[in-house]
Amino acid sequence: MSRIEAPRDAAGAGAGAAATDADAAAAVRAPALPGTLVDRLLTGLPADAVLTDPDVTASYAHDMASFCPAGAPAVVVLPRTVEDVQHVMRTATELRVPVVPQGARTGLSGGANATDGCVVLSLTRMDRILEIDPVDRVAVVEPGVVNATLSRAVNEHGLYYPPDPSSWETCTIGGNIGTASGGLCCVKYGVTAEYVLGLDVVLADGRLMSTGRRTAKGVAGYDLTRLFVGSEGSLGIVVRAVLALRPKPPEQLVLAAEFASASAACDAVCRIMGTEGREAGGAGRGEGGHVPSLLELMDRTTLRAVNDLARMGLPETTEALLLVAFDTADPAADLAAVGALCEAAGATRVVPADDAAESALLLQARRLSLTALEAVKGTTMIDDVCVPRSRLGDMLEGIERVAAEYDLTIGVCAHAGDGNTHPTVCFDARDPDESRRARASFDEIMALGLELGGTITGEHGVGVLKKEWLAREIGPVGLEMQRAVKGVFDPLGILNPGKLF
Amino acid sequence: MSRIEAPRDAAGAGAGAAATDADAAAAVRAPALPGTLVDRLLTGLPADAVLTDPDVTASYAHDMASFCPAGAPAVVVLPRTVEDVQHVMRTATELRVPVVPQGARTGLSGGANATDGCVVLSLTRMDRILEIDPVDRVAVVEPGVVNATLSRAVNEHGLYYPPDPSSWETCTIGGNIGTASGGLCCVKYGVTAEYVLGLDVVLADGRLMSTGRRTAKGVAGYDLTRLFVGSEGSLGIVVRAVLALRPKPPEQLVLAAEFASASAACDAVCRIMGTEGREAGGAGRGEGGHVPSLLELMDRTTLRAVNDLARMGLPETTEALLLVAFDTADPAADLAAVGALCEAAGATRVVPADDAAESALLLQARRLSLTALEAVKGTTMIDDVCVPRSRLGDMLEGIERVAAEYDLTIGVCAHAGDGNTHPTVCFDARDPDESRRARASFDEIMALGLELGGTITGEHGVGVLKKEWLAREIGPVGLEMQRAVKGVFDPLGILNPGKLF
Repeated sequence: MSRIEAPRDAAGAGAGAAATDADAAAAVRAPALPGTLVDRLLTGLPADAVLTDPDVTASYAHDMASFCPAGAPAVVVLPRTVEDVQHVMRTATELRVPVVPQGARTGLSGGANATDGCVVLSLTRMDRILEIDPVDRVAVVEPGVVNATLSRAVNEHGLYYPPDPSSWETCTIGGNIGTASGGLCCVKYGVTAEYVLGLDVVLADGRLMSTGRRTAKGVAGYDLTRLFVGSEGSLGIVVRAVLALRPKPPEQLVLAAEFASASAACDAVCRIMGTEGREAGGAGRGEGGHVPSLLELMDRTTLRAVNDLARMGLPETTEALLLVAFDTADPAADLAAVGALCEAAGATRVVPADDAAESALLLQARRLSLTALEAVKGTTMIDDVCVPRSRLGDMLEGIERVAAEYDLTIGVCAHAGDGNTHPTVCFDARDPDESRRARASFDEIMALGLELGGTITGEHGVGVLKKEWLAREIGPVGLEMQRAVKGVFDPLGILNPGKLF
Repeated sequence: MSRIEAPRDAAGAGAGAAATDADAAAAVRAPALPGTLVDRLLTGLPADAVLTDPDVTASYAHDMASFCPAGAPAVVVLPRTVEDVQHVMRTATELRVPVVPQGARTGLSGGANATDGCVVLSLTRMDRILEIDPVDRVAVVEPGVVNATLSRAVNEHGLYYPPDPSSWETCTIGGNIGTASGGLCCVKYGVTAEYVLGLDVVLADGRLMSTGRRTAKGVAGYDLTRLFVGSEGSLGIVVRAVLALRPKPPEQLVLAAEFASASAACDAVCRIMGTEGREAGGAGRGEGGHVPSLLELMDRTTLRAVNDLARMGLPETTEALLLVAFDTADPAADLAAVGALCEAAGATRVVPADDAAESALLLQARRLSLTALEAVKGTTMIDDVCVPRSRLGDMLEGIERVAAEYDLTIGVCAHAGDGNTHPTVCFDARDPDESRRARASFDEIMALGLELGGTITGEHGVGVLKKEWLAREIGPVGLEMQRAVKGVFDPLGILNPGKLF
């Protein structure tokens, strides 16, 4: 199953211990004798940081992606310090053993999946918030800090760490950095990449490198920080991050708008984000389009699934729902303006919330979407294709066409303001034909996204799931250069092999 | 003078034409016979795109930095198309001739300085705005577009391209990308890097590579886009950029606050950006510190220079001036809150503007600063050290110490909200001893910046000026990795050699 073509029995052949520089490539394919590996790891790690029970290590084999092969780890290590991580990487380099770094394994592309005979390097115990500085507006954290823990901690200082993937209650900052995670807030606040100022990284050979800065600005040398963000653990192990924070904005107020067609809802998105529909009001100010703090779309399939699950009373005739929010000084005024734009685009009903409680209620439908879609057929495969927001309508139309062609139920939630769709195929995993069709529809949807000028992944990453597609998106020259960059940081190919490329 | 140690007479020795892969390193040091080079360039470029008159080519030798050596270009080329650039790079690779890309040469670190026998590749004629899309909020441009031209063009669509280096009326987007330029707006809107979504790049060997995206989000593969931003032309030639735009914000309103000491002004900066001084007003909203659209500081030396030049009537007893602006829906209210914080920090006078005209007047003193400082002694050397904003007071104090120690006049303008100082040494270039002291004080100031947890360059880049300092900032491991990344994209070392490292 593993992407590293390692015959499992080779693991017992002791190939690793004798490996030299010259046969590095071969050595990665023949992991070290597990005994040797574990013994070497234990020379620099406490016993409770090294897990070898196969039942336990198997539970670290994969993240939350469907259709992604995962191998059996030789060992799981749980470092607590930078020195621990350096010891692991030095050992792995010496023995030519692949290392798969992991956060909370909430990823959706198989980027954290184990390969046969690998060291799983779980960063979850390195979970300290080292510093929060309200004047410099930075937090310094270890990679295992849970996103929600950081968010709440900075909130107490009147600060805000925006990136909010839907797994925010469990996912880690290290994982977020690995996949450059997004969330609902991105339409106003951008993705994780925008908030990473500097990193401490343990390189493949165990050396420690610092990148970036803790200042607001800095351009000394190449931006290696951003190179590591989204690199899915394939270039080095992030052991410390300096994150930018923002002042905590006012509580957001939400509006729901119902539409009789998905295309009308997409038209409303263009009017909200574009400049055409914007009134020149307010002393001639702000004629450049709106900046909502959230702009989400749910399609008919998703709405029905949510209704079925939670009896939320969403009208059955509604074909699409938009949720828009503002966290400005006067959100009610902004919602009124956006509500008018929705009506101009044909909204059948516009419901602005009056307060935070009503806002939370309106958002609940969105938050339940994935769970509701999972209930439809037992299994879902969630995609993550982002198109220019002006092409969102074409994308939704295309997905509907694919669903009909493959006879599948595909619900779509979208971070509409970003053009970032999450088409979610609902299927019965016990039905081989339906599973095959689900997998095939996935490819059609990515092809469609590229055709529309989009990308195969807006925020989930490439991992194992989309590596054949990466080449199609970035082309042969780009791929060659990306591989060469990988070679600089990981000449032996031991860092999360088989991912991305 | 050149950083490439090319004996000028070697240029006539015909070494380049016979170069093979094996002696690449040597070949770069011995440029091709100019005749051969020019002939080869002319096979793929119109005659008016190839300048060889030494008087003309000499005028392309350097940017606006002081103390940076510059060599004599063999030829200046002015491509109009991507194919032109590809032809230049193919020729340069074949003949192993160094290529120095240039925009408007407004840089302040010698990053665009020629090396002896090089091809100067001036991108100024590739100056088309290819597209402005108000719904996708992107502009697609060629590298030679002048920053102000783009800014005005997007403004007409109700859009805003924030990066605004002080040279914005003449500098090019390609140059801005090369140095990751900042400006006055950064405290709210960030630097150029934040606005580059995707690039087309001609590689050293003439191949074309696309990076990034035009979508709002995208995480497919390594972020090579950001690797190129700030790479000072050392990795490839940017020939097209997809830039993110924002809705045009309301016109900003400015406040000036006078202080009896620089440290009181820095204290005000901390109160404005921190969370301590923020009132919980406005329905409990926004307790997380202010987000001004501009927060600038001028020290005593700068204020006096401006007064002497323009008789602006700034009070002679004022030791520091802060300028703060907001482009929010209610800037007057924000200015009132910030004015109170300034007074709490000891401001001797607070002057809020009532309208755009008054705002422009208050900003004029800041805009005149560099010209005024230049008038003091005839020559200036402007530095660009950024520290965590909480250390701004220590930085200013340290600069004053350095000025006294070296018996120099050093004025400081600072993007105070970012902790980004521009200490500007005023000296008489005809006085060798004063020139020596000016150069030496520069090093002291960078050392101080690093000591305070800062960076040697916030927005001007490393170029020639600071390359000895880059190693001190990023350390030996970082430097080794940066050099290796350079090697991936420029194996022959022909792209802007002698810069950065």
